[in-house]
Amino acid sequence: MGVKVLTILEDILGANAEKARRNQDQLDKHGILTVNVMSSPGAGKTSLLLQTISRLKQKARIGVIEGDVASTIDAENIKKQGVPVIQINIPGGCHLDANMIENALNNLPLGDIDLLLIENVGNLICPAEFALGEHKRVMLLSLPEGDDKPYKYPLMFTEADVVLINKIDLLPYMEFNIPAFHKAVTGLNPKAKILPVSCKTGEGLEDWFSWLLDEMRKMRRGGSVAC
Amino acid sequence: MGVKVLTILEDILGANAEKARRNQDQLDKHGILTVNVMSSPGAGKTSLLLQTISRLKQKARIGVIEGDVASTIDAENIKKQGVPVIQINIPGGCHLDANMIENALNNLPLGDIDLLLIENVGNLICPAEFALGEHKRVMLLSLPEGDDKPYKYPLMFTEADVVLINKIDLLPYMEFNIPAFHKAVTGLNPKAKILPVSCKTGEGLEDWFSWLLDEMRKMRRGGSVAC
Repeated sequence: MGVKVLTILEDILGANAEKARRNQDQLDKHGILTVNVMSSPGAGKTSLLLQTISRLKQKARIGVIEGDVASTIDAENIKKQGVPVIQINIPGGCHLDANMIENALNNLPLGDIDLLLIENVGNLICPAEFALGEHKRVMLLSLPEGDDKPYKYPLMFTEADVVLINKIDLLPYMEFNIPAFHKAVTGLNPKAKILPVSCKTGEGLEDWFSWLLDEMRKMRRGGSVAC
Repeated sequence: MGVKVLTILEDILGANAEKARRNQDQLDKHGILTVNVMSSPGAGKTSLLLQTISRLKQKARIGVIEGDVASTIDAENIKKQGVPVIQINIPGGCHLDANMIENALNNLPLGDIDLLLIENVGNLICPAEFALGEHKRVMLLSLPEGDDKPYKYPLMFTEADVVLINKIDLLPYMEFNIPAFHKAVTGLNPKAKILPVSCKTGEGLEDWFSWLLDEMRKMRRGGSVAC
């Protein structure tokens, strides 16, 4: 059984990578900076998206793809902000893939979007294995999850362009060693940008907005900004 | 591709269920109450195990199986408590399965264990799909993850015998609607036992210990306590 499963898995990942490249070509053609936002359940992805839309919607035309196992709670909250949003539900699934994103792109007004934010399924493992066609990968670690997570879930931290430490407002109430966390992340991924933020109080978010605006400028100047 | 993948998945789940039944037969033969502990990353599974070992090790002979994508941090912490522990690492994997548990059982002193605690991989999706041979399923939701999680990750909440709301000491610092959470859980799973606890302060843990001791008594009286 093992070998057969592995072969199927290789087929899936190969087909996914090819489709992700085609998605990225399409996004490049439209000049849409696309960011894949990943985290554990409840780390604050939707709050980050809501803060980002609120702060940047005067500077960029934003679109959103929402991935969830079930429910449309997040998409409904995003929709209230007046930006185009597609909800993808994956009963029995645990991550978005390039095929789902292709379908979503076919249903978004690509000519009217500068920044596409994809909220992946809440899962610190599987989403990191599937390219979607995104230019950048951003992960949130919620402070209460603990500073040892890079050792336990290394792929996610290795693949991220930006690591946001969210819920930093809870720091007085728990043990979280920020220097130790930095060391663990940069040991896996020396180029990762690590930003402590609170999507509740707004602390640190200006650095995140600046990073996004910089990447959008690079995209406008030089085409794709994918690594 | 879809149909082929689904067929393989059915094969995997079928073979897993059969092996899980054999694991449970073996655990029943030895009278070992076996509990599969599941949660998101960093919700407090290891802290719960450490508290449980500390409080119950005079009343029961405890064994532990630790599942992680990478690292042996948790198993090392458990080992310091002087109980037998097996670490399972699954690079590229996202859940434990019955085959891994069979291998671990072959390496544990089953004649000297009354209570086997299995710490699954931190993931609120995939572990719920794979029976291991356990008698009971326990999930932790960490308070900072939010009260809407039953809607987004329904299978885990549907399958749990006990739902622990951990990190209840953080309630003064965030919004979490406990009655709304109860309603969401019991809507999916009317029999679920819901216990607010703090593995940091010890609050509420006596109810958890009592539940475990009750289940162990039932097991001694009447053989298997599996649902």
